[in-house]
Amino acid sequence: VIHVAGVNAFADKGSHKHFMAKEIHEQPTVMAYALSHYTVTDANGVKPAPLALDFRDYDRVVIVACGTAYLAGMVAKYWFEQIARMPVEIDVASEFRYREPPVSPRTLAVFVSQSGETADTLAALRYMKGKAARIVGIVNVSESSIARESDLVLPIHAGVEIGVASTKAFTCQLTVLAVLAVMAARQTGQIDAAREGALMSALETVPGAMADLLATESRLGAICWELSKAQDVLFLGRGAMYPLALEGALKLKEISYIHAEGYASGELKHGPIALIDETVPVIVMAPTDPLFDKTVSNMHEVMARGGRILLLSDETGLAHAGQDVWERIRLPRVDPFVAPILYAVPAQLLAYHTAVTKGTDVDQPRNLAKSVTVE
Amino acid sequence: VIHVAGVNAFADKGSHKHFMAKEIHEQPTVMAYALSHYTVTDANGVKPAPLALDFRDYDRVVIVACGTAYLAGMVAKYWFEQIARMPVEIDVASEFRYREPPVSPRTLAVFVSQSGETADTLAALRYMKGKAARIVGIVNVSESSIARESDLVLPIHAGVEIGVASTKAFTCQLTVLAVLAVMAARQTGQIDAAREGALMSALETVPGAMADLLATESRLGAICWELSKAQDVLFLGRGAMYPLALEGALKLKEISYIHAEGYASGELKHGPIALIDETVPVIVMAPTDPLFDKTVSNMHEVMARGGRILLLSDETGLAHAGQDVWERIRLPRVDPFVAPILYAVPAQLLAYHTAVTKGTDVDQPRNLAKSVTVE
Repeated sequence: VIHVAGVNAFADKGSHKHFMAKEIHEQPTVMAYALSHYTVTDANGVKPAPLALDFRDYDRVVIVACGTAYLAGMVAKYWFEQIARMPVEIDVASEFRYREPPVSPRTLAVFVSQSGETADTLAALRYMKGKAARIVGIVNVSESSIARESDLVLPIHAGVEIGVASTKAFTCQLTVLAVLAVMAARQTGQIDAAREGALMSALETVPGAMADLLATESRLGAICWELSKAQDVLFLGRGAMYPLALEGALKLKEISYIHAEGYASGELKHGPIALIDETVPVIVMAPTDPLFDKTVSNMHEVMARGGRILLLSDETGLAHAGQDVWERIRLPRVDPFVAPILYAVPAQLLAYHTAVTKGTDVDQPRNLAKSVTVE
Repeated sequence: VIHVAGVNAFADKGSHKHFMAKEIHEQPTVMAYALSHYTVTDANGVKPAPLALDFRDYDRVVIVACGTAYLAGMVAKYWFEQIARMPVEIDVASEFRYREPPVSPRTLAVFVSQSGETADTLAALRYMKGKAARIVGIVNVSESSIARESDLVLPIHAGVEIGVASTKAFTCQLTVLAVLAVMAARQTGQIDAAREGALMSALETVPGAMADLLATESRLGAICWELSKAQDVLFLGRGAMYPLALEGALKLKEISYIHAEGYASGELKHGPIALIDETVPVIVMAPTDPLFDKTVSNMHEVMARGGRILLLSDETGLAHAGQDVWERIRLPRVDPFVAPILYAVPAQLLAYHTAVTKGTDVDQPRNLAKSVTVE
């Protein structure tokens, strides 16, 4: 018997048509629940809860995972490097394990897997035993192989995830990784208590922002009807939103079978822009941040070539982008630090409603298994 | 006036229909020419030519580039880590420069750009000044900005490249990077003189193998006619062939406008396999190596779902893969170390002949510029 801790751990669809829809809608609740396990509040505000983990013991972090969990790790690379100034190497498990990379002895190795049974991730963990200083497993299933073989297990508390395309596990993985990045930054003296409090407070605003966003879900219908007619779609993002562009593409691919591909916005002109015409929608994930102007210029390159832009941004960003964008999705404005967690939700909703419009089997997409326990 | 050193530096198509065809066919010559600048032969055999570069001065390498040059850097990461046991970080320039990563002071920073003027790569180079111990520019244009601002310039000697889709510059970039990896391994004592000689000799076999392969070019006609009908294509590779899968996809995208995407073979089952049906050809780049059996099992997953496999391998690999693959392209068998250089050629040829069949403008694909001097 496998026990998965968390709220809503019962496996029925409630009032939803699909497990995936239910799991998308659970995110405000499960993210807040996950956060409650990793935070403490005292007179000075919110802080990461104490863990048996001191980042001063390590000089770099290696994160290894597969699929969507890999993309959570990729966001974390940006967070650790930007906030904690700690170098992070990230790789997919099937490459990492076979390339047998050199490992510095002061490495903290982090493995991320919803099931905790992903075969390639487990093999990579075993490769790192005796090489890395410490092994951390970030899992949803606390009795899994990866949990058992880790020095420190950090459960994501997402509750049972049934839909093959991961949704709430992704945002809960991000939540745990975000807290770790703040903790690392504080322990190594890169941020002071005030900044720590500000970042943690920003995290605490996300469940509410997710709920606000989910309340406007019905507006996506028309957009997804248009997307359902596309054969090919590109997703673009910069910085920590680049992995979100990859995640948006992966989700759409997995359940709607539309060939979507994610790109770093700045790489578009080095090849993929050749694909752009009026039949290939380009979905840009760009909260207002210091790089927003660069993204606007990327969008103009696309539009000048007849491309249709769907822009996901906050009110400021949408206003700044001008009238020529094809469609827009307005998100609540949040601290740029937590934007990758919030923007996961519209990425999931776009995939979900597009797939429902196409009539594909959302919870059991063709060719895919929930937990990949073969190599 | 910009001078580009190298053989065949005159800009006409010769007997070829397109500059791209001419440049593909020049590769045996220009690679041998590039190699001659970076090798010396004495009584004990072939060795890297002396350069003012000692890898014992560095504890890691950072490689930054865009587009195809980035993929050359990604192959080099595998080479440096496997042969020299030297950790390498690789990133696209548009991400690297804005994420402002922490840099260890014993870092060797390597920037790769055909034109030497790529705006994002140049900006990343400037970010690294004063942070990295040394800056190396690998360029085709020796009077370029990146060359001028590097501590050490390593010209690739590819000669003028006119086709927008990079071909001979890619294989010459790989050639220089391969020699550097061997040099690093020898200097740091990871390999002995005999292994050094074997690796360098393997490099010297590539121009001949390329010429043999080019002589069988006409066999690709039927395959490319089939590919020209596809809307979507996947490329798969493992290890140092993974960047080649990305390069094959990029080339096809750039000039035929077919939406091709490259994946690490092991990641296929974590999402993209949902795309597979009989309309999406899957191109597998897999020389016989210790991971070949894993790749065969990935191919079986694709074929079990109705997917059509085009396998690029050597005679042993093709025999081992069985009769169910849709199409095969036989390559000369070479040392696995140099396979990424050789396999670049069929990737280019597939893109070229598919584009010619479709009637697209091969040398001036829509939306693309040869040298991206804007951000």
